[in-house]
Amino acid sequence: MTPYVSMSREELLHEKKLLNARYEQFKDQKLKLNMARGIPSKEQLELSMDMLDVLSSDADLCSENGTDCRNYGIIDGIPEAKRLFADLFDVSSDEIIVGGNSSLTMMFDTISSAMGHGLLGGTPWAQQGRVKFLCPSPGYDRHFAITEYFDIDMIPVEMKEDGPDMDVVEQYVQNDPLVKGMWCVPKYSNPTGVTVSDENVRRLANLKPAAPDFRIFWDNAYFIHHLFGDDKPLLNLLSECKKAGNPNMVYMYFSTSKITFPGSGLAGMATSVENVNAIKARMSVQTIGYDKLNQLRHMRFIRDLNGLKEQMNKHAEILRPKFQAVDDTLTAEFGESGAAQWSKPEGGYFVSLNVMEGCARRTVELCTGAGVTLTPAGATYPYHRDPYDRNIRIAPSSPTVDELKKAMQIVATCAKLAAIEALLAK
Amino acid sequence: MTPYVSMSREELLHEKKLLNARYEQFKDQKLKLNMARGIPSKEQLELSMDMLDVLSSDADLCSENGTDCRNYGIIDGIPEAKRLFADLFDVSSDEIIVGGNSSLTMMFDTISSAMGHGLLGGTPWAQQGRVKFLCPSPGYDRHFAITEYFDIDMIPVEMKEDGPDMDVVEQYVQNDPLVKGMWCVPKYSNPTGVTVSDENVRRLANLKPAAPDFRIFWDNAYFIHHLFGDDKPLLNLLSECKKAGNPNMVYMYFSTSKITFPGSGLAGMATSVENVNAIKARMSVQTIGYDKLNQLRHMRFIRDLNGLKEQMNKHAEILRPKFQAVDDTLTAEFGESGAAQWSKPEGGYFVSLNVMEGCARRTVELCTGAGVTLTPAGATYPYHRDPYDRNIRIAPSSPTVDELKKAMQIVATCAKLAAIEALLAK
Repeated sequence: MTPYVSMSREELLHEKKLLNARYEQFKDQKLKLNMARGIPSKEQLELSMDMLDVLSSDADLCSENGTDCRNYGIIDGIPEAKRLFADLFDVSSDEIIVGGNSSLTMMFDTISSAMGHGLLGGTPWAQQGRVKFLCPSPGYDRHFAITEYFDIDMIPVEMKEDGPDMDVVEQYVQNDPLVKGMWCVPKYSNPTGVTVSDENVRRLANLKPAAPDFRIFWDNAYFIHHLFGDDKPLLNLLSECKKAGNPNMVYMYFSTSKITFPGSGLAGMATSVENVNAIKARMSVQTIGYDKLNQLRHMRFIRDLNGLKEQMNKHAEILRPKFQAVDDTLTAEFGESGAAQWSKPEGGYFVSLNVMEGCARRTVELCTGAGVTLTPAGATYPYHRDPYDRNIRIAPSSPTVDELKKAMQIVATCAKLAAIEALLAK
Repeated sequence: MTPYVSMSREELLHEKKLLNARYEQFKDQKLKLNMARGIPSKEQLELSMDMLDVLSSDADLCSENGTDCRNYGIIDGIPEAKRLFADLFDVSSDEIIVGGNSSLTMMFDTISSAMGHGLLGGTPWAQQGRVKFLCPSPGYDRHFAITEYFDIDMIPVEMKEDGPDMDVVEQYVQNDPLVKGMWCVPKYSNPTGVTVSDENVRRLANLKPAAPDFRIFWDNAYFIHHLFGDDKPLLNLLSECKKAGNPNMVYMYFSTSKITFPGSGLAGMATSVENVNAIKARMSVQTIGYDKLNQLRHMRFIRDLNGLKEQMNKHAEILRPKFQAVDDTLTAEFGESGAAQWSKPEGGYFVSLNVMEGCARRTVELCTGAGVTLTPAGATYPYHRDPYDRNIRIAPSSPTVDELKKAMQIVATCAKLAAIEALLAK
């Protein structure tokens, strides 16, 4: 097959006719497939059903330090839950806060308090002028929604194969005292699947920020969410920051949303003891404490880091064929057309699809017309502005393999149609 | 017995000697009783144990609208939970948000967003100058901690037998555009046990605030927490506000913390649809959703408003003898000394004890010395400043009846000692 860019006008028109016919066939099937978000499948939810039985009315409902988990008390998590998170992050328990059900809420609250109250005695961000965040892109739309909500200026930074473009990061962070933060999904990133390299973790740790209250929001949402068992190592940013004399520069987040039950999981963060104490002081005004019964329920079910890893292997077994189906179908469909490139992630929840420049919005629109709902084009960039209008996030977790094959045929058909429309319009 | 104020110096010295001897006896018993907070007893927690069995692995885990509660989705609560709260508040379901486990967090978040973002398109409070809240006092220390955290100027208003001093409230609210809010625990209030009268609810609803973004934070924490079954009616402030043309003026809060398990309950709020939509817009940035499995667990256990009321009757049976023991012991101990007055609440979690003016701190200090931990004196006032240094909050829920009798003997002994010390120092 000739690449589209090398085709004559006649060849393109012919190809368009074929694709249009196929598109109409898909439309006639009146499909309804939603691939907008990284939602675990029912099969994955079944992996955690035993968790619903571990805290029955005849169970011991005390945490290991004797606290009755049914009553008030303990603001930063029961000891066994803190230990699990500490083992996972390879930090000490006093560097851990176990929160409610949402790590996103913990990030929101941290930024909210930085805006209104400042960090570690510093001036509130909101009183320092219009502050800025670096946003490695493509990235996670819900991160960008938080910074947009707080009217923080978002600066896109290219997400490369080994992490954010560190030359640009250093340039901004080390020269502009209004650059207060940076988002990063460091492992199997959303959506590109990238894991930050050791060298780049060290460069991050060794930043010399112009702002003393600069923070890296290290959202390790997919820390152990591998697809092929062969866990890609990620350097411990908190340890590296300590070595570099920047002990307070990072907040690391995690949750069990995609391990047990989304919305009914545990969220937690790891950061320096100084940061932990400042955050606990705010939390003690905001709540009497989080759901300790749910913490205990998780610990009775997961037990320890090994239990967590076993659970993740089971998730991987379910997810792997789905990612494989996406890759196989896209490979077969796009062929030599050159109408798209896509990621082949080793973990995480997404395939990042780059269609031809200027064609992402049109592709998503065409998909919607054929019953396939995708994340809106542009969503992976700050302000929904993809400068190339090319990135589309594919979330393969929820549909079945057969649905995915069909959906990817449709996505490819739409992307190719959009590409030809664009080429013909030139 | 002669009232202390009528005693001669010799009589006071004699009485002091007797009390001192008794105090030393108590000290020798090396008691350890914590009555600092309104914590349900183990017996009360046992009332909800069946809730731990309703969501086992073989249960149907879908809400009544078919949503799988194990997965992402639904930001404002599953329909059955919204209906329960709607029935309770006597409002419609679209005037309800079911949140996480903490109504305190919902209040904190509402104030936080008002400070940083303003209400319904208004200027952020933080940009309007130093804003003020009216604080009916004695009141709930955790409310005052929130407004203090946001550096909001707290103005104490006397909490009378039928609610806040409405003359003062009207004076402030209707003349000062920087008065942005008012705290109120309207039923069986913390700590005085007062329920706001119909007349005062109507006066609140008919306020003509100088600030268009003035709000009443109506924390109905003890809405159905009666002790004697005979439920004291409370007028529906939201309905009254609508009638008065102030539909957006009130946020009403509630939680099941003292109905099922503290920290593992459901929190919710009722307010106008316009307010609900504004809050949901913020929540959709802050979280993907709250714990729907816990919402479902509660609904399977509580079922409906009747189920809620049955549960509250069981709580009342456990609590009633405790409040009775407090009242009986204080009556016997204080006799005609005139060294204290206290509330005889029909519901809620507290007895409000007024010792002789200037004696609360000393009383709490003496109690600590004898092994009885009370809420710190002053805590029931903004900035911990009780202008009379007389109010002490007694929380009878957690100790046993025998422990309460002993504790009240100690509290009375300490209060009488403090009173005599004060009289002798005059």
